[in-house]
Amino acid sequence: MKKVNINEKLNLFDEYWSPKIVGELNGQFIKLVKVKGEFVWHDHKNEDELFLVIKGKLIIKLRDKIIELNEGEFFIVPKATEHKPFAEEEVHLLLFEPKDIEHTGKIKHELTKEKPEWI
Amino acid sequence: MKKVNINEKLNLFDEYWSPKIVGELNGQFIKLVKVKGEFVWHDHKNEDELFLVIKGKLIIKLRDKIIELNEGEFFIVPKATEHKPFAEEEVHLLLFEPKDIEHTGKIKHELTKEKPEWI
Repeated sequence: MKKVNINEKLNLFDEYWSPKIVGELNGQFIKLVKVKGEFVWHDHKNEDELFLVIKGKLIIKLRDKIIELNEGEFFIVPKATEHKPFAEEEVHLLLFEPKDIEHTGKIKHELTKEKPEWI
Repeated sequence: MKKVNINEKLNLFDEYWSPKIVGELNGQFIKLVKVKGEFVWHDHKNEDELFLVIKGKLIIKLRDKIIELNEGEFFIVPKATEHKPFAEEEVHLLLFEPKDIEHTGKIKHELTKEKPEWI
C-alpha cells in the first residue's frame, strides 16, 4: 500500500521494449515501458491492451490504420487485433493489461520478454 | 477504436465527484473525474480502485494513514479498504476500476452517482 511516482519508476531502468510492473489490481497489471524503434506485429487473442503516452510520440500501426499518440493520449488495442508499435524517438508508456498477457502474443521473437519484473 | 486525449475529455465537463467513462477494456473502465472538497468514507467490497493524478494534489485518507498524491502519481486502494478522498483545490484524476463498481460502495449519499456516463 504505497503510492507510485511514475517518473521515479521510469528512472530505474533504461532498457527498451521491456515492460516493468508497477501496480496490480483486479487481475490487471500496471506496467511502464520505454520504447524506441520498431516492435514486431502481434496480437493478444483474449486481452485488450491500453497504451498511455507519458512522454514522446508513439505510432501504433494496425492493419487498416495508423494511430499517432502524443503525451496525455491513450489508445486501447482490442483483443485479437494485430498491432505494431513504433517510436522514432524514445517514448515512455504506461500499459494496463491483464496479468497473464503474453508480451508478443503467440509470436516468439528476440524482443519477447517471458516474465516481466516488478520494480 | 479511437484514441483518447485526456485533457480534451476533461474540458467537456465541470461537475465535481461525477466520474465519466472514457475507455473500456477487459471488464474494466477508464474514468476521468474532477474533484474538490471532501468525499464520503466508503469502501468497495470486491474491487481494487486506482487513482492517478493528472493535475493537482489529492489526499486519500485511510483509517490508519494518509496518502498524498501529486501529478504523475497513483495509488491503488485495495478492496474492502475504507477511504475518503479530499482535495483542497480542484484535482483532475484518472480512475481504473471494474465496470460494475459502485461509486460510494454500499453507502448511499447525496454525492452518489448511480450510473456514470460515457463522454
